[in-house]
Amino acid sequence: MSAPDVIVNPLEIEARSFAIIDGEVGEHAFDFRQWPVVRRIIHTTADFDFVANTVFSPQVIDKALGALRRGEPVYCDTAMVGAGINKVRLAALGCALRCHVADPDVAAAARAAGVTRSIMAMRKGIDGGCGIFLVGNAPTALYELLHQARAGAIKPSLVVGVPVGFVGAAESKEALLESRLPSIVCRGRKGGSAIAATILNALMILAEEA
Amino acid sequence: MSAPDVIVNPLEIEARSFAIIDGEVGEHAFDFRQWPVVRRIIHTTADFDFVANTVFSPQVIDKALGALRRGEPVYCDTAMVGAGINKVRLAALGCALRCHVADPDVAAAARAAGVTRSIMAMRKGIDGGCGIFLVGNAPTALYELLHQARAGAIKPSLVVGVPVGFVGAAESKEALLESRLPSIVCRGRKGGSAIAATILNALMILAEEA
Repeated sequence: MSAPDVIVNPLEIEARSFAIIDGEVGEHAFDFRQWPVVRRIIHTTADFDFVANTVFSPQVIDKALGALRRGEPVYCDTAMVGAGINKVRLAALGCALRCHVADPDVAAAARAAGVTRSIMAMRKGIDGGCGIFLVGNAPTALYELLHQARAGAIKPSLVVGVPVGFVGAAESKEALLESRLPSIVCRGRKGGSAIAATILNALMILAEEA
Repeated sequence: MSAPDVIVNPLEIEARSFAIIDGEVGEHAFDFRQWPVVRRIIHTTADFDFVANTVFSPQVIDKALGALRRGEPVYCDTAMVGAGINKVRLAALGCALRCHVADPDVAAAARAAGVTRSIMAMRKGIDGGCGIFLVGNAPTALYELLHQARAGAIKPSLVVGVPVGFVGAAESKEALLESRLPSIVCRGRKGGSAIAATILNALMILAEEA
């Protein structure tokens, strides 16, 4: 094919996509820093349900940008989330990426305990400090995070809570909202690794711009 | 939280999820090997639109399983697709994973030409043979693949065509369907890296079972 009318410039593709999304969504209640995040979720999924599903806790954008600029570590529950994060931007901010779900000791411990690797990876990743936590896949990882935060073992500067699925995903996200931790959440069943990554990418762009 | 009623066993989570999906979808027109693929897409996205959107070309499951059992290489357009593929299953089948989008020479060539890295990565990956091609992100990569196939430079055993977005994604997938290449396609704007990976993962399970 390579038809001559196919747009091949990535910046032009993105700009046109954003214009289409702006036009189709029309009016909304997000502020000028929330909307670039939601728009990028729609850009990643082509799913306008996220306009209604996406919730920001009070002042969470300020807290997230502060954490990024302080170079806090970024934890993620799956390798796919890590793969989707813009590494150039992350390095420029000085943030380390931590993902333990594929570590052999995590897999062995999860098998032995009969629980998800995500739970064990979350336990391994915790070192008592602050950080940005991205949960794109596993409700079990989000529940474990809430448990650790309640116990004072972690002090999240931001929790991106967007696990996907039919067993526990929606409930885990409501539990996150009730926890009053700084969070960006896509309520309901929908979510996923690509959404977790795209939210962080959108925040990193905001951190560079502001 | 770690509430006692939270299901933490991954196999139990998957089984319950599949039962919920089966129940909510009810009757459908997919055969006994297509449905596990579609069901896994829904499991990955929590989006029932994929029941209507997902299209299989004639005999594509046979062709895909044949390619997997012959150990043909698997090409993917983004690192996220690669990250989502089950490496244990891929290694058991003897298939190599090829993804060039993050190669420095690909990025430099794309910048110089003003085109997407996906196009350059697709060009670099092509070595004239057969293979399984997963396009989860970039319509430009899919158009380039169709161009190369038409020119006889590649002979795809399977094209998973699920790019996502607002500029060219839907059109590129219609072009794939018109090409009559063996394909699994999610028509319209929706798609994504997680879907491309999950389709291959579902096919690898079928390849083991049959």
